[in-house]
Amino acid sequence: MRKYSIDTTVRVRMLHRAGALAKLATAIGEAGGLLGEISIVGYGEHDTVRDLVVETADDGHTARMLSAIRALEELEIIEVRDTVFERHKGGKIQQTSRVELKDVTDLRYIYTPGVARVSRAIQKNPELAWELTGIGNSVGIFTNGTRVLGLGDVGPLASLPVMEGKAVLYGKLAGVSATPILVDTKDAMEFVETVVRLAKTFGGIHLEDIRIPECFVIERELKRRLQKPVMHDDQHGTATVALAAILNACKATGVDPKRSRLGQIGLGAAGSAIARLALAYGVRDVLVTDLSKDAIATLEAEGAKGRTLEQLLGEADIVVATTGKPGLIMPSQIRRGQVIFALSNPEPEITPAAALEAGAAFAADGRTVNNALAFPGLFRGALSVRSASITTEMLIAAAETLAACATNGDVTPNPLDPAVHEAVWKSVAAKATQLGLAGTAKL
Amino acid sequence: MRKYSIDTTVRVRMLHRAGALAKLATAIGEAGGLLGEISIVGYGEHDTVRDLVVETADDGHTARMLSAIRALEELEIIEVRDTVFERHKGGKIQQTSRVELKDVTDLRYIYTPGVARVSRAIQKNPELAWELTGIGNSVGIFTNGTRVLGLGDVGPLASLPVMEGKAVLYGKLAGVSATPILVDTKDAMEFVETVVRLAKTFGGIHLEDIRIPECFVIERELKRRLQKPVMHDDQHGTATVALAAILNACKATGVDPKRSRLGQIGLGAAGSAIARLALAYGVRDVLVTDLSKDAIATLEAEGAKGRTLEQLLGEADIVVATTGKPGLIMPSQIRRGQVIFALSNPEPEITPAAALEAGAAFAADGRTVNNALAFPGLFRGALSVRSASITTEMLIAAAETLAACATNGDVTPNPLDPAVHEAVWKSVAAKATQLGLAGTAKL
Repeated sequence: MRKYSIDTTVRVRMLHRAGALAKLATAIGEAGGLLGEISIVGYGEHDTVRDLVVETADDGHTARMLSAIRALEELEIIEVRDTVFERHKGGKIQQTSRVELKDVTDLRYIYTPGVARVSRAIQKNPELAWELTGIGNSVGIFTNGTRVLGLGDVGPLASLPVMEGKAVLYGKLAGVSATPILVDTKDAMEFVETVVRLAKTFGGIHLEDIRIPECFVIERELKRRLQKPVMHDDQHGTATVALAAILNACKATGVDPKRSRLGQIGLGAAGSAIARLALAYGVRDVLVTDLSKDAIATLEAEGAKGRTLEQLLGEADIVVATTGKPGLIMPSQIRRGQVIFALSNPEPEITPAAALEAGAAFAADGRTVNNALAFPGLFRGALSVRSASITTEMLIAAAETLAACATNGDVTPNPLDPAVHEAVWKSVAAKATQLGLAGTAKL
Repeated sequence: MRKYSIDTTVRVRMLHRAGALAKLATAIGEAGGLLGEISIVGYGEHDTVRDLVVETADDGHTARMLSAIRALEELEIIEVRDTVFERHKGGKIQQTSRVELKDVTDLRYIYTPGVARVSRAIQKNPELAWELTGIGNSVGIFTNGTRVLGLGDVGPLASLPVMEGKAVLYGKLAGVSATPILVDTKDAMEFVETVVRLAKTFGGIHLEDIRIPECFVIERELKRRLQKPVMHDDQHGTATVALAAILNACKATGVDPKRSRLGQIGLGAAGSAIARLALAYGVRDVLVTDLSKDAIATLEAEGAKGRTLEQLLGEADIVVATTGKPGLIMPSQIRRGQVIFALSNPEPEITPAAALEAGAAFAADGRTVNNALAFPGLFRGALSVRSASITTEMLIAAAETLAACATNGDVTPNPLDPAVHEAVWKSVAAKATQLGLAGTAKL
């Protein structure tokens, strides 16, 4: 993770003179701005126009950085653009046609009168919709915006850019056609009713950024009522990537995950799913802790062991923290040889450097667990064999594949490598088939 | 409209010999098949492989046509494909990315951490969603599949190919990103609640293929509750194109529409909307008839005049029929000089030829009123100025533009001409602005 979250593109016209860029870079550096991409936009006879991307901490910092540039002589700021906002102009996704429409014959084929026969065929045999519509490759990304990134309850509309981002990842990484659906209710059962009523529209139901405890209720009810893949990504997508990272960290440090004690700190959506997946994977002891006694009791009923934070840190061989509390873990609490995943973003419970210095055998923060690694392949895999569900076994298959795809000593692979996503969806599809789930989905 | 609705692609290998194609064409012709496109797929030394598209009436007819080909010597059928079904393979639309995703910098811009700032900005100022998401150019196409084309209640899933076709037209003709949404309920208020709960997802709400009377209730309620364009296309899209055709037919025959009597036969979704739009346009007398006395009474309350079918045909200068009843109008009922639109598909209430022979000054059937002409531009126009609604004035502006765009003596323009759709959306946007509606939409 980079330090700052604001990227500003500054377009400057500067004299084409030795040392000119150095002066500019110095001014930006002295103002604390981090230089990113630098590109030449135009050459004049005496001057050059460049775009510089500068990272800053906040709006005040950006203003100070710009003042420092303005103070320079022989240089003019032509334009200042917010790089991220610019990329979002007009939205990040668009529904597009997969068929030609160049003449009246095409119209006759894809619309009336031709389409009537296709509709009638599906009416007689709904299974034909897998083939004759896009449903077999489609996912609806449903959210009510009650728990968006680290922002909390921003509401459905403000969550749309995040959902569009997910849809981009689905398309680019796995060729899945994903559509954000904003559901304007905080009531779990209203949410469920709405999704059930729309479920015929999509092959898969991706639940996203819904707060606890509603996310648990919604997912459970939808899985019960629909015969198609339903998955809350903040739970199971994250848990899948975390398990992959844990497997590789254990391998690197010579720890056997199945014979070890895994301690999960924080039992929100991600944390409880990580604890559950670790149990399903066969980790001998899964210790859990949370501020909520109910959350601990729920996991205990499923085979985990409740602990205090101190007990857990004292006993666990592998520690996973998903609390959102920066600095929660003191270096003094780290046990020599422990594997530490402090996953809260943007600030971890303990920095990898501090954990390693305190004796951890391995330490990583949230950068290693990018859930873009899991959801595209999980859904593509389930859809490709028309599985009615994404089971724990399929999550584990995906985690093992992700672990195997990591290279260069990283514990997780590059999320932008298409080969990784292909490997994931193929292993998920194979597992579903092995489990007898192929062809069980209902439209 | 072409006569038949089945298109079969037959791939044949035939000797490369004078008269070979003639024999094949003769056999197809004698079996009653209509030849469409013929293309060469491969040349051998002695033979040629061709694809022939043949139109037939039904599956039995296709089988007879294929038998006739098989009976030929020195010719082999390699493959038979259903041309329309083939075009539908995998569906007709796909959600695609509008942004690059080539490296981790892109990921940082379009997803986390960059997207968090965009979400927060929209949370503070929802109006920014117009700019920073795709919502300003998006339409949800909502249906429950209760009245699909001439097929009736096929249910939501079987209606999906039609909705995908509409989405293709939105994209190709007006650059609008349209997404089918299947709502699995026949209850009008459940339908309304569902759309309201999802309304934040889309800039515009297109209602499609919903049966009467639910379509009226649903549209009225949604217009009342949402501050964004809502339109039931089967009503107002069709009425807009019909008005355009009427205006041109009147011009061609020297009839002044505002001083004439228009008779609307059939008060379903399309018919009642045509009568209402004619009233709004200023047609002096609008006569209406229907099997339902309630439907007539409703229109009478809005200024139309109820008549029997015989009375209406005797009095009207312009007759529009949307009854779904082939042959309803007898040639003996046509009055000399009448303008006749018998719009039911696939078989009109009276064929244009029969109406003209009986003395009509102008006659046309459903082919002239292709509603692909209206909805893309109506929504694009409303969205482009962020109008809270699509008003009757905007429908009339679109109809007048469509009428002006027709060429070569046709009463409506070519639905695949992008210039026509651009003219429509610009006139709709201009009308909305003139009415003070620009910027009134709420997200």
